[in-house]
Amino acid sequence: MVIKLMAVTDDTHDTSDLLRILVEIHPYVDHVQIREKQKPAGLVYQLCRELLEEGLPVQKLWLNDRVDVALLLGLKQVHIPGQGLPLEELKKLYPDLRIGAPVHSLEEAVQAEAAGVAYALYGHCFSTASKKGKSPQPLANLGSIRQNIRIPLYGIGGIDVERLVSLKALELDGVAVMSGIFSAKDPLSAVKKLREECLRLDEIQ
Amino acid sequence: MVIKLMAVTDDTHDTSDLLRILVEIHPYVDHVQIREKQKPAGLVYQLCRELLEEGLPVQKLWLNDRVDVALLLGLKQVHIPGQGLPLEELKKLYPDLRIGAPVHSLEEAVQAEAAGVAYALYGHCFSTASKKGKSPQPLANLGSIRQNIRIPLYGIGGIDVERLVSLKALELDGVAVMSGIFSAKDPLSAVKKLREECLRLDEIQ
Repeated sequence: MVIKLMAVTDDTHDTSDLLRILVEIHPYVDHVQIREKQKPAGLVYQLCRELLEEGLPVQKLWLNDRVDVALLLGLKQVHIPGQGLPLEELKKLYPDLRIGAPVHSLEEAVQAEAAGVAYALYGHCFSTASKKGKSPQPLANLGSIRQNIRIPLYGIGGIDVERLVSLKALELDGVAVMSGIFSAKDPLSAVKKLREECLRLDEIQ
Repeated sequence: MVIKLMAVTDDTHDTSDLLRILVEIHPYVDHVQIREKQKPAGLVYQLCRELLEEGLPVQKLWLNDRVDVALLLGLKQVHIPGQGLPLEELKKLYPDLRIGAPVHSLEEAVQAEAAGVAYALYGHCFSTASKKGKSPQPLANLGSIRQNIRIPLYGIGGIDVERLVSLKALELDGVAVMSGIFSAKDPLSAVKKLREECLRLDEIQ
């Protein structure tokens, strides 16, 4: 199976830049996660609305943290960060909401699955500029997590074309890439290279 | 009529400190607005939950920005900041939600009332540390705003005991105080002094 690709926005672009980049790259990724933590809710709302109007398929869109923005737009997919809204309460009130959640250990992964989340995002996998000074989580954990949960397992953190091969070996369902796409000089070219490597790894397996 | 008092949290206290302060002061204010912009949604959720458990009357509680936290807790009162969620869409989806909104002019005040907001918050009224380098909005506008809207009109920004008298003269329904309470060495004493002045101004009128 081809490793799935999630592009996670990095909150460094203004919304018009971000809209342009996302419209360019979305055909080459499986998911887009809007993670614009410092932008006010009204701007995030507007960005998502315009993205959908510009043709981003709604099933590719995941919204980080702001469930209220998702509800206003009728979106059914959110990513709840650590210290975000409580997952169980959220599932109770909105059973149809698909929720992605970060995990850092086997225990958290099992809890996330029990809480009904749609995918677990493990990280960070490698050293990365966005988590400066913090050690990566051991990749070795991914083996036992993989064996103990059935929901899709994604990796995040410092993922680039060269590192995809080791995540493929660990049987991850997908990878989430932030700075590797949104800090790249040419995000479209970066995404295409990642996609090509995902396809190549699938063929040689 | 006695000027109403809204205590607006200033995002400088940790949640346990804030909980302690709010439990102390809430008997002396009419409204509490939780405005903890830098705290993750899960912490804000927890804080509001504990506040209610500690006896804060739910009708005093207004939650800034995070409609999703309000929905999870069954709260019906939110304050939507500038660049927050779109008011009309919000009222359409949640007609029972009571929404407070900031206004900076007569035009905005009239629009806010038309959008169905529960109160308009004009400011900032005086120079204040939390809006450093920005000129206050002219107090003179408050006269025409007062005459043109029926919803409660509150003032915010640099309000202290001495300045209450001029806001009372402008027939404001209430005042919202942030640093005057939460930056005070003794928030309880600060709130009591504000309350006493509100009562005194009502008597001498």
